[in-house]
Amino acid sequence: MSNPSNPTQLTYAVIGTGAVGGLYGAKLQQAGAEVHFLLHRDYETVKNEGLRVDSVWGNLHLQAVNAYDRPEAMPPCDVTIVALKSTQNHCLRHLLPPIAKPQGVLLLLQNGIGTESEIQEILPKTEIIGGLCFVCSNKMGPGHIRHLDYGQITLGAYGPHYQAQGITPTIETLSNTFQQAGIPTQPVEDLMLARWQKLVWNIPFNGLSVALNATTAELMAQPSTRELARYLMEEVAQAAAAYDRDISPNFIATMLDNTAKMKPYHTSMKLDYDHDRPLELQAIFQNPLDFAQAKGLDLPRTRFLQQQLQFLVDRRKSE
Amino acid sequence: MSNPSNPTQLTYAVIGTGAVGGLYGAKLQQAGAEVHFLLHRDYETVKNEGLRVDSVWGNLHLQAVNAYDRPEAMPPCDVTIVALKSTQNHCLRHLLPPIAKPQGVLLLLQNGIGTESEIQEILPKTEIIGGLCFVCSNKMGPGHIRHLDYGQITLGAYGPHYQAQGITPTIETLSNTFQQAGIPTQPVEDLMLARWQKLVWNIPFNGLSVALNATTAELMAQPSTRELARYLMEEVAQAAAAYDRDISPNFIATMLDNTAKMKPYHTSMKLDYDHDRPLELQAIFQNPLDFAQAKGLDLPRTRFLQQQLQFLVDRRKSE
Repeated sequence: MSNPSNPTQLTYAVIGTGAVGGLYGAKLQQAGAEVHFLLHRDYETVKNEGLRVDSVWGNLHLQAVNAYDRPEAMPPCDVTIVALKSTQNHCLRHLLPPIAKPQGVLLLLQNGIGTESEIQEILPKTEIIGGLCFVCSNKMGPGHIRHLDYGQITLGAYGPHYQAQGITPTIETLSNTFQQAGIPTQPVEDLMLARWQKLVWNIPFNGLSVALNATTAELMAQPSTRELARYLMEEVAQAAAAYDRDISPNFIATMLDNTAKMKPYHTSMKLDYDHDRPLELQAIFQNPLDFAQAKGLDLPRTRFLQQQLQFLVDRRKSE
Repeated sequence: MSNPSNPTQLTYAVIGTGAVGGLYGAKLQQAGAEVHFLLHRDYETVKNEGLRVDSVWGNLHLQAVNAYDRPEAMPPCDVTIVALKSTQNHCLRHLLPPIAKPQGVLLLLQNGIGTESEIQEILPKTEIIGGLCFVCSNKMGPGHIRHLDYGQITLGAYGPHYQAQGITPTIETLSNTFQQAGIPTQPVEDLMLARWQKLVWNIPFNGLSVALNATTAELMAQPSTRELARYLMEEVAQAAAAYDRDISPNFIATMLDNTAKMKPYHTSMKLDYDHDRPLELQAIFQNPLDFAQAKGLDLPRTRFLQQQLQFLVDRRKSE
């Protein structure tokens, strides 16, 4: 990728124009970039009425949006932003080849771990960047997004087997252009460490919020679940350590403290469960378990929680 | 204890005249034994109207019952049957001394492990027998019990640190007199083995039925929870093994098979939870965890489940 100094010199494709993809895509377009949005159910609405983002960064209404209902109709773009829920990742094999420039960049905005290598198989020559969004944003209706708080994206370059790549030129370019579009970024040298660090929070709080029908505040209010969350975090840290990534007890203690100070919060998995949407069990639970197992490590509590979630999902299906 | 050949030669006290104590006490009285019932909320009803047991063994209505509302009013008895829920065990220190004959027998009809040693401290000279009831029996109202199925009591003698005592004369006597009163019994040589064996079922199914709001049939219907139950059973077997008690994979497989064949079943802990009664977490979860820990053994899944249950109980209290 060339090294442009502002967002308008790159073209962007957004796959998955929801709470995350819609927000960031709209910010890029507002900054003058050429952005192409792939949509599914919301295609007609967005094509006709544009994209509305009510945001703590300032409200946006993009009247004219490059909207598409199939990947073949889209032009190849410099940066392909995948902002689908990971439960849709089985579609990537079909969606990505027509859109992503072979020599371009693919930015994966998803939680969990392990998906970058699947994408690398689909697009062997494409540079892959992992992005972790710390954002509170919801889809309110077709083409209508509400961005409530935060918004920073951690950006790390993917290399084979998640070898740390350092701050690559592409990371610098993406980070600069995003920041110029008003999107805060945090470039990191080691994507895998960032992914494990986020899993340290996502595994206990996404999982327990569904298993125990609880907000983060309820989970932090009781000593039993505070301890349980800490045990789960320590297990995730063990898995990270098996890949020589150090997550210290201090990191865990700080994360628990910060969670206790948060407002009562429904995790994304809880919202998915309550709205009868598929849960991101593969990326957030199964892949970390597989990574651990590949190093001969059992994560009994993480697996326990995953099995409970799987039960809840399967029972609902069988109802 | 002398060695009588029929139940009428012994006197019995029943502490806790509910679904279990009421059923077995009524059977003993029907067989001609002198039985004294300690009651709390149901005292007036039972004193005035007697005890009704609708039972698969035949319906009973005992018009005249020796009913008491405080232990000091009761005569010392040869056999004191403790059939309280283990959540009431903090009352034993107050209840037992006036009732139990120092040289008599105490029969503890409870699930879990560890309570016999607490009772032995209260009654240092009393012979203690542990009883495990395989019975489906519910309290329908004051002085009214409904016995739906099963009913056998496993009887094992308690010795210091749960050393196996073999089939003692007292076990033989109790077993014979109970059988003559129509109560099936199974004498065992090793009480601790019997307690671990029952915990192998109680820990997964009592725990998961509450944590996942599920019947045994629902838990057995999904591969995830079948595996999860098996993992929990294997953990309990590990704890038993630390005390040189062997619980084989075959035993676990058979227990799972039998559970799959049962009718959809609400466990006692689920019924307690649904009726807002205290859960038997100490005897069924905390004591086994403490026993394991005393041997340097961690039971991560069992502890996880206990912490989830504790959360559910504490959140409800705080509501």
